[in-house]
Amino acid sequence: MSDGISKSMAHQRHAKLAVAEMQALVTDGVPLAAYLGCRVLSLDYGTASLCLPFRPELLRPGGTISGPAMMTLADVAIWSAVLSMLGPVALAVTTDLTFHFLKKPPPGDLLAHARTLQLGRRLAIADCTITAASDPRPLAHAVGTYALPERD
Amino acid sequence: MSDGISKSMAHQRHAKLAVAEMQALVTDGVPLAAYLGCRVLSLDYGTASLCLPFRPELLRPGGTISGPAMMTLADVAIWSAVLSMLGPVALAVTTDLTFHFLKKPPPGDLLAHARTLQLGRRLAIADCTITAASDPRPLAHAVGTYALPERD
Amino acid sequence: MSDGISKSMAHQRHAKLAVAEMQALVTDGVPLAAYLGCRVLSLDYGTASLCLPFRPELLRPGGTISGPAMMTLADVAIWSAVLSMLGPVALAVTTDLTFHFLKKPPPGDLLAHARTLQLGRRLAIADCTITAASDPRPLAHAVGTYALPERD
Amino acid sequence: MSDGISKSMAHQRHAKLAVAEMQALVTDGVPLAAYLGCRVLSLDYGTASLCLPFRPELLRPGGTISGPAMMTLADVAIWSAVLSMLGPVALAVTTDLTFHFLKKPPPGDLLAHARTLQLGRRLAIADCTITAASDPRPLAHAVGTYALPERD
Repeated sequence: MSDGISKSMAHQRHAKLAVAEMQALVTDGVPLAAYLGCRVLSLDYGTASLCLPFRPELLRPGGTISGPAMMTLADVAIWSAVLSMLGPVALAVTTDLTFHFLKKPPPGDLLAHARTLQLGRRLAIADCTITAASDPRPLAHAVGTYALPERD
Repeated sequence: MSDGISKSMAHQRHAKLAVAEMQALVTDGVPLAAYLGCRVLSLDYGTASLCLPFRPELLRPGGTISGPAMMTLADVAIWSAVLSMLGPVALAVTTDLTFHFLKKPPPGDLLAHARTLQLGRRLAIADCTITAASDPRPLAHAVGTYALPERD
Repeated sequence: MSDGISKSMAHQRHAKLAVAEMQALVTDGVPLAAYLGCRVLSLDYGTASLCLPFRPELLRPGGTISGPAMMTLADVAIWSAVLSMLGPVALAVTTDLTFHFLKKPPPGDLLAHARTLQLGRRLAIADCTITAASDPRPLAHAVGTYALPERD
Repeated sequence: MSDGISKSMAHQRHAKLAVAEMQALVTDGVPLAAYLGCRVLSLDYGTASLCLPFRPELLRPGGTISGPAMMTLADVAIWSAVLSMLGPVALAVTTDLTFHFLKKPPPGDLLAHARTLQLGRRLAIADCTITAASDPRPLAHAVGTYALPERD
């Protein structure tokens, strides 16, 4: 199934913006993501990988990473996966986001992998899986919609 | 990413119920799914594939398959993916479901592929992708939670 | 809070289509809703009330009403609340729907009350609460987005 | 409809923890909410009102308040509405959250009003509406589930 999705989106095409361009959009455009230190690792046409480096400030009592930190990471990862197909159109805005928290995230770096499920003329839909850097089992899943600016 | 998920759930283990047992649960337990003709195709430990055979009654004006028919298919597919890890515990109940409709589904058979993202003691979370039988591009995506009965 | 929402949407304006027009759209446009017998009770500008009359076919083992029947009712109620502000534009399509199932619904008639949270140029967002006809406590909650056709 | 919900939850009962206790849980338990300055305004049995005071750091390009700031506010408001019925059980954890972003939030203080839709033995479900402090029209809506620790 996932292979079908990836193949159908990928087409061997390149991302329409560079990692450094996307990083600049994140850092300038989402102050909370900048504060948290979200880092864009890689972009392909339709997919994006980001990292949230561990900092003690991310912890909540019990020693797990707080939900809003993961939500911020997923939001930015999904935005990156959409912009990888559109180029640097900062004006795409989130219209909905759904999160499922699967396991309590242990202290440590988090990875987010997002993929575009559908790119339409007016809407793009993408999902994201968050894992620990050291363990491929999913800790959180997000899916959401972006409203796209008018294009030619 | 998806490979990580699949591998971490699969462990080369067998589904804890047979296709015919799951089909009986669907037919007896979800009257709308029985009316629509949802068919269980295959089960592995943590995943399930189902089919919704085409019937003209599924169409809405414009010639696409109606949303509630796809929602019913996805609900039953997610339930099947969860029970593949638990066995025939009819009492698992849905607590939330989120759908994204990606493309208008053309008239024709639909396939649903569901996978368990997390099986906990009290909750299971799974997602599902619906495609046309003849095209691997996703038409709809669903993700949801099941509350599990107490186990030993 | 809810008062703020209702007042801000309502403006003492009338629904832009009649109950009988909306009923015809439901009956003709959503075959599953017609099969289930969903009935439009009332429309105001921004809100809609619908009924799902009880039938034994709606039950699942355990004697509760099946999830897909409630999802179909909520989908149609949200569509009605959006069209109450737009008039009979059959082409509005659901892009996402999120359901939370709160209590097991006892056998009996169900009521759905939907309200538009936001009507934009391209998207409308609405939610819906389902109750038993005889008890005001919510049994299910749904929220979703409709993509609107181009308007002048 | 909303009246039915509020009345059925409220029963003229008092919140099971004080505003200052809830504020301490937020400040100590959700580092991002503390950084943002989320403030608990009032609690009743089943409902909670919170404020996110405006700070220029919350803005994103275009002069609107960033999505993750609103998500953090809503998460904490929903948690507060649930704990108002349970008392200070820090261990309730979010299992899912769905956000709809309705309008771009203008620079200024934001208010969040959350209400518990259902309190079960193992799960609680609540929703939240965010508005500007100066305008009752909703800017964002959230709904989610909390898994509750075992109780006697």
